[in-house]
Amino acid sequence: MDPVRISRRHLFTATAGAVGAAVLHRTGLAQVEVPPDPTKVPGHVPSELGQRSPFERPHRVVGGGYQGASLTPLQDLCGIVTPADLHYERHHAGVPTIDPQRYKLLIHGMVDRPTVFDLESLRRLPAVSRLHFLECSGNGGPAYRNLRPDVSPQLVDGLTSTSEWTGVPLAMLFREVGVRPGARWFLAEGGDAAVMARSIPIAKAWDDAMIAYGQNGEPLRPEQGYPARLLVPGWEGSANVKWIRRIEVADEPFMTREETSKYTDPLPNGTARQFSFTMDAKSLITFPAFPVTLPERGWWEISGLAWSGRGRVTRVDVSTDAGQSWVPAELQGPVLSKCHTRFRFLWRWDGAETVLMSRATDETGYMQPTLAELRKVRGLGTAYHFNNIRAWRVRRDGSVQFGLEE
Amino acid sequence: MDPVRISRRHLFTATAGAVGAAVLHRTGLAQVEVPPDPTKVPGHVPSELGQRSPFERPHRVVGGGYQGASLTPLQDLCGIVTPADLHYERHHAGVPTIDPQRYKLLIHGMVDRPTVFDLESLRRLPAVSRLHFLECSGNGGPAYRNLRPDVSPQLVDGLTSTSEWTGVPLAMLFREVGVRPGARWFLAEGGDAAVMARSIPIAKAWDDAMIAYGQNGEPLRPEQGYPARLLVPGWEGSANVKWIRRIEVADEPFMTREETSKYTDPLPNGTARQFSFTMDAKSLITFPAFPVTLPERGWWEISGLAWSGRGRVTRVDVSTDAGQSWVPAELQGPVLSKCHTRFRFLWRWDGAETVLMSRATDETGYMQPTLAELRKVRGLGTAYHFNNIRAWRVRRDGSVQFGLEE
Repeated sequence: MDPVRISRRHLFTATAGAVGAAVLHRTGLAQVEVPPDPTKVPGHVPSELGQRSPFERPHRVVGGGYQGASLTPLQDLCGIVTPADLHYERHHAGVPTIDPQRYKLLIHGMVDRPTVFDLESLRRLPAVSRLHFLECSGNGGPAYRNLRPDVSPQLVDGLTSTSEWTGVPLAMLFREVGVRPGARWFLAEGGDAAVMARSIPIAKAWDDAMIAYGQNGEPLRPEQGYPARLLVPGWEGSANVKWIRRIEVADEPFMTREETSKYTDPLPNGTARQFSFTMDAKSLITFPAFPVTLPERGWWEISGLAWSGRGRVTRVDVSTDAGQSWVPAELQGPVLSKCHTRFRFLWRWDGAETVLMSRATDETGYMQPTLAELRKVRGLGTAYHFNNIRAWRVRRDGSVQFGLEE
Repeated sequence: MDPVRISRRHLFTATAGAVGAAVLHRTGLAQVEVPPDPTKVPGHVPSELGQRSPFERPHRVVGGGYQGASLTPLQDLCGIVTPADLHYERHHAGVPTIDPQRYKLLIHGMVDRPTVFDLESLRRLPAVSRLHFLECSGNGGPAYRNLRPDVSPQLVDGLTSTSEWTGVPLAMLFREVGVRPGARWFLAEGGDAAVMARSIPIAKAWDDAMIAYGQNGEPLRPEQGYPARLLVPGWEGSANVKWIRRIEVADEPFMTREETSKYTDPLPNGTARQFSFTMDAKSLITFPAFPVTLPERGWWEISGLAWSGRGRVTRVDVSTDAGQSWVPAELQGPVLSKCHTRFRFLWRWDGAETVLMSRATDETGYMQPTLAELRKVRGLGTAYHFNNIRAWRVRRDGSVQFGLEE
């Protein structure tokens, strides 16, 4: 860090010299008029709804190698909360327009009292709010195969976001409708044009699944399932069925397209992992990372996100020497279960080329594997659950590139 | 709760009957075209920036009896996070437009190395993120004097919001510039047209004050001090100087206008409380509340927010009989220090007229006082720190009104 150190008199002289005509800045599409001295002109009056500074244009990347997706700008964010308008998207047939007055959720099948809940009924029941990450099971493909050096955290892992979700515990609805003995699974069906459907083990309902209608304090955004979605904390995104309209309770899974031809992991031995719901422990350094160039050697704070679908992250180790040695990073509290956890690590860069890596461990003792370890178990045919250790190469000129050379 | 209970066949028949022409809905300014069956038409494609559902129009109320203010719609929110564009505002001369490239923070006075930090320097230093409420010290006036029955939670107490704030600890900056022995206070001066300035005891800097540049994961919003503000967690809003441009370290307070003629509490005995920074423990039921009308007797979940500037909320008691008896409510985790805490209380309304109240206790043992207790200590001349117990009267017709009759 090299801030300018000057006396007060020096500052005021310099400031006086800078006073002149208003400066026009071009940021994105808009021209912003900045007064030479903002203390000399009245500011904007309060408003019904705030806007970002015209100098800040965070945005999702649409596509990024995925169909029907947009990716969260992880490298532009701090803390753990993802603003709702930057939450990643992954849709199978786009975002439907649903009238909340006409919204219905049917729960039927192996239940004593088949029931249709409208939104009012759901909102009237006792609610729960929890901070949880949500991650697409295909997230992180660029860290597993065909590695390229010129990808940002957003392009590597932008299909993960964290929100405070509010809703009604599914267990409460299941008690209300009287789930019958022998019930083992339920089907969750969405109201989008894909009629997205997944089979979920009923134990998840008795654990922590909810029908969520709130996101970061306000109603769900349309892309996240407005007016209501299934939330199965810690499980792959596609199982958190959006725009949920029907739940059918049964004694066996339904074998929908999205759990047979898709979202099933082919293994090297010719068999396949099916119903691989849980997102394993994972971490990603978001600074420094491509396309950042460190302007100078010296002290830098490495910062990143870690998360686990199995519970709390208990430890994140950072290596600044390509994995030869590992040192625990600081975890930013509150460290919450199945939630992004910010980690920080103070690092003195000596100007030599090196590789930065992070490795998460969760409360079950599970540790994020290396790329070689994961490939050995999963093979190259899979399209899901890429939680191997990520690496960023820092070059002598300060530029940062993604991935180890193979 | 009385959802419709029907068979699957019944539902499908009913749905089929509803299929027809697209329905046009007028919501606010826009007409929304809703397809009769959203599963039969492709939805919207992913986008760089999300939008709210056209059926949802949460907004701040501008004014609400305060100058230069807008109030958070507490009754429309769930959980504890306030979306950044709904965070309350209170300005002394509007929102300045500040170019982040030209932003400077001078720290001088009783320091060894007077220093100007630019935004880049601040962001390079080790950061911290924490969830904290921010509350205007004048919040809650409608609960203290001239009580009216027809005010919503937003109008009673909308000058409080919670965000995840990210920034650099002020202690780190003070060590960097070498604060001298004998320093006891510092001046925090804003870059708005009011050049808002407050004296802060230096102990707060060694405790938990920060220069914040992040809010809910993204850069501060302009109304909350873009590009950087002082954050003094748990202390009255005006001490959290926005658009901070200068900190001067000294051995005594500066006695600015905003801590002499304003933000000082006249007491009944003719003296005044000065530097009354801490926001005392407080709670507010946000449902049921005006203008809600309960449609029927039966089970309802009372929900609200509690917070304390002294630390964690340890207990919220709810009374459903106008304060004759009190029962502890459930606190929604995580319960964080100096942060909104959601409480919930399941209540069976028997249809009789009654009064609902909530009462917060914090980890110091401080308990939210009654209106009579607070008026006795503070008198009627004060304009700040109205943390007395709030009451909502539920009438036989289910309508809800604010306040006890006096």
